[in-house]
Amino acid sequence: MKKTFDVILARNEPKAEAFLEELDGKKPLFVCTIATTETAKIPGISAAGKFPEFTDYTPPADAELLLLGKCKCIAGVPVTPDGIPTPALITLSALKLADIPVIVACGGLKVKPQIPFLDLGGSPGRDIRTGNAVDNVEEVIQRATLAGEHLAKMADYLVIGESIPGGTTTALGVLSAMGVKAEGKVSSSMPENPHSLKSEAVRVGLASASVGFGGLAKNPVKAIACLGDPMMPAFAGLVIGAAAQVPVLMAGGTQMTAVLAVAKALKPSILCNVAIGTTRWVISDCSSDIKGIVDQIADVPILAADLDFASSRFDGLKAYEKGIVKEGVGAGGASIAAMAKTGGAITRDIMLKEIERNYELLMGVR
Amino acid sequence: MKKTFDVILARNEPKAEAFLEELDGKKPLFVCTIATTETAKIPGISAAGKFPEFTDYTPPADAELLLLGKCKCIAGVPVTPDGIPTPALITLSALKLADIPVIVACGGLKVKPQIPFLDLGGSPGRDIRTGNAVDNVEEVIQRATLAGEHLAKMADYLVIGESIPGGTTTALGVLSAMGVKAEGKVSSSMPENPHSLKSEAVRVGLASASVGFGGLAKNPVKAIACLGDPMMPAFAGLVIGAAAQVPVLMAGGTQMTAVLAVAKALKPSILCNVAIGTTRWVISDCSSDIKGIVDQIADVPILAADLDFASSRFDGLKAYEKGIVKEGVGAGGASIAAMAKTGGAITRDIMLKEIERNYELLMGVR
Repeated sequence: MKKTFDVILARNEPKAEAFLEELDGKKPLFVCTIATTETAKIPGISAAGKFPEFTDYTPPADAELLLLGKCKCIAGVPVTPDGIPTPALITLSALKLADIPVIVACGGLKVKPQIPFLDLGGSPGRDIRTGNAVDNVEEVIQRATLAGEHLAKMADYLVIGESIPGGTTTALGVLSAMGVKAEGKVSSSMPENPHSLKSEAVRVGLASASVGFGGLAKNPVKAIACLGDPMMPAFAGLVIGAAAQVPVLMAGGTQMTAVLAVAKALKPSILCNVAIGTTRWVISDCSSDIKGIVDQIADVPILAADLDFASSRFDGLKAYEKGIVKEGVGAGGASIAAMAKTGGAITRDIMLKEIERNYELLMGVR
Repeated sequence: MKKTFDVILARNEPKAEAFLEELDGKKPLFVCTIATTETAKIPGISAAGKFPEFTDYTPPADAELLLLGKCKCIAGVPVTPDGIPTPALITLSALKLADIPVIVACGGLKVKPQIPFLDLGGSPGRDIRTGNAVDNVEEVIQRATLAGEHLAKMADYLVIGESIPGGTTTALGVLSAMGVKAEGKVSSSMPENPHSLKSEAVRVGLASASVGFGGLAKNPVKAIACLGDPMMPAFAGLVIGAAAQVPVLMAGGTQMTAVLAVAKALKPSILCNVAIGTTRWVISDCSSDIKGIVDQIADVPILAADLDFASSRFDGLKAYEKGIVKEGVGAGGASIAAMAKTGGAITRDIMLKEIERNYELLMGVR
């Protein structure tokens, strides 16, 4: 009897199905790649709202939440201006339910998390409008590749997620520099996707770096250095190092397409061993187009956790059904891994119950 | 048919044999815990000789050697004043032969390695003669415990080694503060074990901290803070976090006894799941007495890799048979793990051939 999973085969169905079957019953390792960029502080770009400095705390707080079940560097948990909690709540619930181990990898941070983390030698990112956004890209890619090679020996497959505010803008930057048409196609955690602000930031950044659209198609290292963020070299290196040995589920939304473009340019042979794992909210989002971006890069499958919060008793979770937050901290990929590890025993309903339990605990509501 | 391994059951033979059988054919993860202490710069204490500042580079260089097969922060590899290479050469050979993954964990370093490493929130250690040797001990233990819990889910068992010059002096410090008689019993990497220098440093440190022999028997955190080194909270936390789930081979010489005393005081229930893994050169050393120290702490087994370099064509390896270096960077434990992982297929002879091959490559000799 064929097993069923609450997972949508969202792109390249045969490969997506084969990929999911390959994960069935296997033991994953979840890697959370965190970094910060000043790009997140451009007014209106990120859900950080009127306190841009909060974006420095979101990634370490997300990582602490995954490892400790609570944050240490901030009170409470990261929330949007409307009080909607971080998607790390979903990730935490998935990892706990399925007893999946976690490694936090640091690409470059202003504020360090108060937990064990893998230092990959990176620095916090600058505003992409400078055209000089990330230092030490090649070295971080090399170190992350080495880490990926070793981590791949410790699990049947890797699920890699990220937390970096402003990450869809830097994704648009790298995709544009590499000649992938992504304007109007990257996602947002906000209900109104500020596409014009993102495009303008990228336009200024390209001009500052004296780079035209597609001018760095064959130079992904420089594309990140000029218009990317410090999550990217860490994430891309981990993928390259691990996917030579084991399957890698790239857990995230449209930001994954920039990492995919980089990884493809650096080592195309790994493409056969990767898939993107995201949420239903990303693939059904009208204000972004992940498939339209992936189509231009590589024929990798997309899987989406078929989560549904419509029936939740908490407004902060119901909001996901209105397209707020949508994805982040590998929420979709972690959910898929939890379902796959347990052969489908963990369903979307079990996930929602656990997420609500953690929501209650962490948001202090009933 | 019973398998044979080139491993000596050196203490508590029945438990040692059962422990070794438990590892047979299983997949280990090797964790290399690195840190530095100013204690290593006390003249005559460490093999660093007339260049005490070299001790700041030895641990990061050892870690780089394990991950990259060469050092980055120094030219060549760490050597004793007589040109005998670091035992990381043995560890590297064992890990490569048996394809064992490595995580480098940092307890507190003056010089960071140019590779991925797990940051546990520690700082470099001060001279124990101050009686105020290590900061942030409790926090590092907590973070390392969390790391140990997660790493334990990624392997069948953990092998944890260390690299910290001056580590037997700080071990004597912590053992003395905790009431374990170790004077004249700790090992040395030098041919002449400077016991009186070590005892004098500990005597001064105890006086500075206003602590008598055994005065901190029930306060291992303070014992490390006063007279220990930053490797210890990292190592002890890793053991405590991991040994609750999987076997842990504590890979090292007499330094392991101080970590054992700390781990026992913090969480005695883990003792049933740990063993010390060392080399024949440590257990047959006349100038130290690892068994005499362990006898006072807990009835844990000791296993020793039965390596033999007498027939080596390199004087730098033959020197091990004269009691120089003896152990370090988890050389003995890594060798045991390599033998156990391959069901005994890796023998002492195969080890020596691989070590000689790497010696040639790294020392630039024939």
